Amino acid sequence: MPVKTQNEGTFPPMHVLAKRAREAAGVLALSPAEQRAEALRHIAAGLRSETEALLAANRQDLEQADVSASFRERLTLTEERLEGMASGVETLAAMEDPVGQVLAEWERPNGLKMRRVAVPFGVLGVIYESRPNVGVDAAALGIRSGNALLLRGGSESFHSARALHKVIQQGLACAGLPEDAVLMAPDAGREHVGDMLSAAGLIDVIVPRGGRALVERVQAEARVPVLAHAAGLCHSYVHEAADHELARKVVRNAKLRRPGICGATETLLIDAAIAPALLPKIVADLAVEGCTFRADEAARAILPDLPAATEDDFATEWLDKTLSISVVDGVDAALAHIARFSSHHTEAILTEDAAVAQYFMQRMPSAIVMWNTSTQFSDGGEFGFGAEIGIATGRMPPRGPVGPAQLMTYRYEVHGTGQLRP
Amino acid sequence: MPVKTQNEGTFPPMHVLAKRAREAAGVLALSPAEQRAEALRHIAAGLRSETEALLAANRQDLEQADVSASFRERLTLTEERLEGMASGVETLAAMEDPVGQVLAEWERPNGLKMRRVAVPFGVLGVIYESRPNVGVDAAALGIRSGNALLLRGGSESFHSARALHKVIQQGLACAGLPEDAVLMAPDAGREHVGDMLSAAGLIDVIVPRGGRALVERVQAEARVPVLAHAAGLCHSYVHEAADHELARKVVRNAKLRRPGICGATETLLIDAAIAPALLPKIVADLAVEGCTFRADEAARAILPDLPAATEDDFATEWLDKTLSISVVDGVDAALAHIARFSSHHTEAILTEDAAVAQYFMQRMPSAIVMWNTSTQFSDGGEFGFGAEIGIATGRMPPRGPVGPAQLMTYRYEVHGTGQLRP
Repeated sequence: MPVKTQNEGTFPPMHVLAKRAREAAGVLALSPAEQRAEALRHIAAGLRSETEALLAANRQDLEQADVSASFRERLTLTEERLEGMASGVETLAAMEDPVGQVLAEWERPNGLKMRRVAVPFGVLGVIYESRPNVGVDAAALGIRSGNALLLRGGSESFHSARALHKVIQQGLACAGLPEDAVLMAPDAGREHVGDMLSAAGLIDVIVPRGGRALVERVQAEARVPVLAHAAGLCHSYVHEAADHELARKVVRNAKLRRPGICGATETLLIDAAIAPALLPKIVADLAVEGCTFRADEAARAILPDLPAATEDDFATEWLDKTLSISVVDGVDAALAHIARFSSHHTEAILTEDAAVAQYFMQRMPSAIVMWNTSTQFSDGGEFGFGAEIGIATGRMPPRGPVGPAQLMTYRYEVHGTGQLRP
Repeated sequence: MPVKTQNEGTFPPMHVLAKRAREAAGVLALSPAEQRAEALRHIAAGLRSETEALLAANRQDLEQADVSASFRERLTLTEERLEGMASGVETLAAMEDPVGQVLAEWERPNGLKMRRVAVPFGVLGVIYESRPNVGVDAAALGIRSGNALLLRGGSESFHSARALHKVIQQGLACAGLPEDAVLMAPDAGREHVGDMLSAAGLIDVIVPRGGRALVERVQAEARVPVLAHAAGLCHSYVHEAADHELARKVVRNAKLRRPGICGATETLLIDAAIAPALLPKIVADLAVEGCTFRADEAARAILPDLPAATEDDFATEWLDKTLSISVVDGVDAALAHIARFSSHHTEAILTEDAAVAQYFMQRMPSAIVMWNTSTQFSDGGEFGFGAEIGIATGRMPPRGPVGPAQLMTYRYEVHGTGQLRP
């Protein structure tokens, strides 16, 4: 379809920026892997050398922000956090480059040689809340995967985002790459989000990074494909053939290692056959660390002191030290509960019965299914992807952890010697 | 997210059918490859044994249809066409099964074993025009790839579609698979299309098969991912280092073998350096077969009798014996023309210079790029995919020819031995 060349003044600023990013994306996609690695190393260095300026910009945001304590906590930059961001960027600089990898290669009987080659999506539109690190993580993933980015962070973090953006653009420039490969909203205006969502043909994929309200708005309004992480309502299912000690330690890790991450287990399903013996121990393990519970009737028949769970409790992503508990009658009942309440992120089965584990995994609608380990392993780094822009919970690829190699589409290249189609 | 169980009567019929298809999809995805192959063989046999009933249903459509000759031609079933459909279904029965294939497998330093496993999308919603064969092709692709289908064909083909649907359901039943794995709209009502487009969470992917108006409507309205084939405005670029004889025969095949298919070349780009010598020969080759032309000024400087091309001509998918011609100054000018006018389907370069071919292919935004062969090879069968549900021209995967192995998403399976995340 021809892109009409009109006076740019008639377009929203984010559409104009998306066009500039698209130009830069063409250069980025063709740049050598090492040049993009160099840009990443310059960015890491900049995050360290510009600490003062970055913290000053962040103070400006913090002074103006009239927000909750937890919001403020996410907004705050520290020297330690900047160092963490820098070392994350360096990790990506050292990762294998996905651009141009030959994903498949075959030859047809008529001699045509076919190749499927990984190519970047193009322009990623990243919409995130007032967490300055998200913009840097996304930019680093974009540069590693040859994608240009258009960033729109929460308005309360505007000064921090702008200061970080300057470091990113300097890193690109030092490596001889176009600064337009990472662009950001020109001001804290709220209209930029809607303009990004309507930018079909200018932005290739929208990545919303934030709470459910943001993700749902993006999914409802976007005229562009969305790589969305809807929620992490993850289940751990303790099958009757589970090793009790393994189940106790894995459930404890899955729930409490970091209760606020998306891979944390929110609901424990446990087989009726072992619940009387095992559930009290699991509950005691967690209670001693301050966990609270919402239990169904069958669980309360074993532990009458637990508060009763409502339907809504089983549909709740607690992100906190709260665990919903349901006692189920075997693997099919566990699967039925998951089919009803899961957000299709990650589920686990704990069992020593390989056939049951296989049965459970094969019937799982979620992006990630685990056997005898903790749902907290749901993370691009833990998968060996170097980093992730999120865990995609949709049905279409890419799903699961989205690292640099997942931020790619492909092109078919066909090499002939004059073959004609009969 | 919990699926609310409400009185089905409050939902549109297509949503109710989509839920039934989803139940069947679960069975289909777990069925052995051979069972689905058996269903396909039964369907092929049914297409042959039920010829009389199918042709009678088709006559009913033809009697009622007040449509153009070409519309009537696409709507018409014949014994020969039914045989073609049957043998297409048999080809798919013999194809390798994509369901459950391990796409990648690796182990982490902590001993976690990771697998990426191919799983079907789930429920495909196929919206097509009054071409009865499309429903059968789609159903066969769905069964081979473990996807359930909800079909809505053009209202003029309703009786044909219903008769074919009966054969499909009998084939499923004979193989012991649920008949609900392929469902169709209950009547010729036009509201079913809109109801399918709004069926987020019930239908996983919408596949529009038809003209630009249908595809554009689907893309504008769908709240479900769309696997769309927007248009096939394909280019063949004859580079100055092309072998003249190869270029002549390939361009002739690319334009005229079947001018009406999406992979047909619509625009010829030719380097200024060779145009005076080669363009008259190419034009003569095509003119003798009844082709007409629209040429830019540089081409008309060589062949003044050719009609002048407008901007709109270069943006037109002729699907007929008409060729747009532009004389360009080298590969970058060819790429710029393609970037402006291409529908991102298929483009070809004809050259003996491997470095230029590589340069051209690397900069190509389209799903398929060919070197020294005919754009008419853009076809799932020619790629070795067995069949295709279309050529996806979007940016996200799957793109290019979509065969059974492309109608798949994936799930990550993680196998541990009690690992805890530190």
